[in-house]
Amino acid sequence: MQISEHRLRRDIEANAEFGSVVVESGHGRSVLTGTEADRKAREYFCERLRDAGLAIRVDRVGNIVGRWTPESADPTAKPVAAGSHLDSVPDGGIFDGPLGIYAALESVRAMQDAGVTPTRPIEVVCFTEEEGQRFDGGLLGSAVAAGEMTPETALALEDDSGVTLKSALDEIGFHGEGQLVADEWHAWLELHIEQSERLEEANVPAGIVTTITGLSRCAIEITGEANHAGSTPMRDRSDALTAGSEFVLDLENTARECADSVSATAVATVGKLRVRPNAPNVIPGHIELSLDVRDIEVGSIERIIDGAKESLERIETECDIVTEFERPWNRRPIPMSDRCRNALRAAGEAADINTQELHSGAAHDTMHVAKVTDAGLLFAPSRNGISHNPLEWTDWDDCAASTQVLGGALKRLACE
Amino acid sequence: MQISEHRLRRDIEANAEFGSVVVESGHGRSVLTGTEADRKAREYFCERLRDAGLAIRVDRVGNIVGRWTPESADPTAKPVAAGSHLDSVPDGGIFDGPLGIYAALESVRAMQDAGVTPTRPIEVVCFTEEEGQRFDGGLLGSAVAAGEMTPETALALEDDSGVTLKSALDEIGFHGEGQLVADEWHAWLELHIEQSERLEEANVPAGIVTTITGLSRCAIEITGEANHAGSTPMRDRSDALTAGSEFVLDLENTARECADSVSATAVATVGKLRVRPNAPNVIPGHIELSLDVRDIEVGSIERIIDGAKESLERIETECDIVTEFERPWNRRPIPMSDRCRNALRAAGEAADINTQELHSGAAHDTMHVAKVTDAGLLFAPSRNGISHNPLEWTDWDDCAASTQVLGGALKRLACE
Repeated sequence: MQISEHRLRRDIEANAEFGSVVVESGHGRSVLTGTEADRKAREYFCERLRDAGLAIRVDRVGNIVGRWTPESADPTAKPVAAGSHLDSVPDGGIFDGPLGIYAALESVRAMQDAGVTPTRPIEVVCFTEEEGQRFDGGLLGSAVAAGEMTPETALALEDDSGVTLKSALDEIGFHGEGQLVADEWHAWLELHIEQSERLEEANVPAGIVTTITGLSRCAIEITGEANHAGSTPMRDRSDALTAGSEFVLDLENTARECADSVSATAVATVGKLRVRPNAPNVIPGHIELSLDVRDIEVGSIERIIDGAKESLERIETECDIVTEFERPWNRRPIPMSDRCRNALRAAGEAADINTQELHSGAAHDTMHVAKVTDAGLLFAPSRNGISHNPLEWTDWDDCAASTQVLGGALKRLACE
Repeated sequence: MQISEHRLRRDIEANAEFGSVVVESGHGRSVLTGTEADRKAREYFCERLRDAGLAIRVDRVGNIVGRWTPESADPTAKPVAAGSHLDSVPDGGIFDGPLGIYAALESVRAMQDAGVTPTRPIEVVCFTEEEGQRFDGGLLGSAVAAGEMTPETALALEDDSGVTLKSALDEIGFHGEGQLVADEWHAWLELHIEQSERLEEANVPAGIVTTITGLSRCAIEITGEANHAGSTPMRDRSDALTAGSEFVLDLENTARECADSVSATAVATVGKLRVRPNAPNVIPGHIELSLDVRDIEVGSIERIIDGAKESLERIETECDIVTEFERPWNRRPIPMSDRCRNALRAAGEAADINTQELHSGAAHDTMHVAKVTDAGLLFAPSRNGISHNPLEWTDWDDCAASTQVLGGALKRLACE
C-alpha cells in the first residue's frame, strides 16, 4: 500500500485557496467557522469524500464524517477513525488541520487502490471549530463528540456580534442532525503539523506523540480610568495599559524561570489584548487580556498561574487599578494510548520511515477523543517551528512520509 | 457692565437641541461639519448675531464672523475678536465650543446694554471643523484664518465617503466668500471648558491659560514572529507584545521622571495598541502603538521622545524583534500673550471673580490664532474633568462668571 503524494498535495493546495489571504511571503488563509471560506472548504472536502465512495453524514454541530465500509468489513464493528479540522486562525497557514484531514482521506484511497481488506469500517472526520477563533475556546466539535459539551450548549455559543454557532452553521448549510459519538470508535488517529522544531532538527519526518500538554486559559481584566492624555498629570493617572504591561512582563519572567529550572516544556503566553477606548489622546481606562499556560506537568502550570495571580495582587496594591481574574479552562495533560503508539511505530518500521517520540505542546482534538477511546497523535515537521502564520510550511515529501505512517497504522488498527 | 446668565443659558440650551442624542444621563450632541445639525446650529447663531445688530460675513471655509462697529469705534481700527466653534465630536457634550461662541456674543450684548463705547470694532467668530471628526485633523477653520492652510487645500479635503468640505458647506449654505484673516485682529480671546479638574478642585470659576501645550504624536511598530503559544519554547520566542510592554513601562518611567524633576506639566501616553494576530493561542507577531507626548516646554518633549527611541533601541538589541518609529505630528508649545492675560486678570479683579493661571494640555483654535496676533485663552471648570462625553458639564453660574471675565477683558482690549 502506497499513498499518493500527488493526490494529497492537490487536495491541500486546493483547500488553501479557500479564505486565502494576500501575503508577501508564504501562503496564508483565514477560515473562520461558519464563514464563506469555511463553506467552500467543507464542500470541497465532501466532494472528495464522495469521489472516494465514502458515505457522508454531518452532525448537529457541523462535524463531518465520511465512512468507508468495504465489503471485507463487518458494518457493525466499531470503526477506526482519523481526521483533524479545516478551520484556521486569522492569517494562519495551509497545513494546520487540512494535512490531517486529507492524510486520513488519502490513507483510505491508498487502501482502496491497494485492495486492502479491513475488517472494520474506517471514518474520515472533520471536527468543527478547532481553533476557537469565532466561538468560545476551541476544540469544539471534538468536545461535543467526546461528550464534554452538549450540542445544545455548543449551538448556543455566540460570536462577538451575537451570531450563534447554530445560525452560522445554518448559514453555510452544515447544521446537520444527530451527534457524532467518539466512544463508538475502536481507535482514533490524527496527523498534525508539529508546530515546533524538534522533528526538523532531528531530520525525522514523523513524530509519535507520548502526551498532549495540559492547558489552562485565563481571562484577565484591568480597570483604571479613561482620561484626557493632555490634561491628566502623570501622577494622577490610573492607566490600565501600564498596569497590564507590568503583568505581561511579570508573567514572562515567571514562565522563563519555570522553564529553566522546573520543566523545560512549560510555556505561558499573553496572545490577546484589547485596550479601551483605544484612542491616541485618551489614557487607557480598561484592558482585557488572555493568558494561556501549558505543560505536560500539572505542577508547573499551577506554579505559573500562582505567579500570575501574585503579579495582579502586587499591581493592584501599587497602582490605582482594579483587576479581575478568571480561569475558565483547565485541561490536564493527556497521555496517548499504547495501542495507537505501537501501531504508528510499526507502520513507520514497515515503510522504512524514521519516527521519534515527543510531547505535544499544543492542544488538539485528539485530547478530547483520548478521554473516551484509544487515541494516537502523529506529527509532521514544521519548518522553523512556525505555525498560525502564512510562513507555516511542511515539505511535501514530509507530508507524504507522515501520511504513509498514518495510513499504515490505520490499516493495522482497521484489520484488528 | 453685567452679562446675562439667562441669555447665555438660553442660547447654549437652544444650541444643544441641534444634533442632540438620546442618552441615559447627561446631555449629548453630535454636530459634524456640514451636516443638518451643523446647519441648524449655524443658522441659530446667525439669527442671534442679527438680533444683536452685528454684520455677518461667512468666508470660503465656512468661518462665520459677526461684527459690531459701534458709533464710538473707528471702523478702520483693527478689531478685537472672540469666539470658538459649534461642531462637536460624535456623542459629545453641549459646552465644548458653544460656550465660547455664546460667551463672546453675550459679551457684546452686555456692552451694548451698558452703553460701553469701544474704540475698536468687536468680532464674534465661529471657526469651522475644530474637532476634525469629518475632515482631516481638526482646528481647520482657524488654520486657514492664520494662514497655516490655504482655503483651496481645506476645501478639497474629503470625508470618509469622498465628500469634499466645499460640497459639504455648499450643502448647508455656508460656503461663503473671501478669507477670514486673523492677523488683522488687534487681539483674540477664547473661552473654553477646561477638560480637566484643576479649576473644580481649586473652586475657581475662570482659569487664565499661560501656554497651550506642545504636542508630538508618534507611531511605533514592533515586529516579532507570530508562533504557536503551546509549542514554541519560552527561549525561542520573538514576542512583539512582551517587547511592547517593556516599551510602555520605559516610557512611563521616563515621563514620570521628567514630570518629577524637569517639568511638572510633561505627560506621555500610549493610548492605542493593536496586537496581531490577537488570538489567545498565538504569540503576538506584530504590534502598533501610538505615543502622545505633551508639555509646555519643548525640552521635556524632546527628552521623552529621545527616551522612547533609546528604549526601542535597547529592546531591539535585547529581544529578537524589529522596531519602527515615526513622528508625523510635532506642534510647539504656544505661549499666550501678556497683553491678553493681563486683560483677563484685570477683568476678573474688576468683577471680583477669582481667576488662576494654568496651562492647557489640549489643543484649541487659539493655538493657530496666537501665531499671528496676540491671543488669550480662558477656561471654565469641567465637572470631574469630563469632556467629549454627554456627561460633560459646567455649572451655569461658572458659565456666567467666566463669561463676565471674558466680556470684561474684551471691553478692555476694545477700548485700547
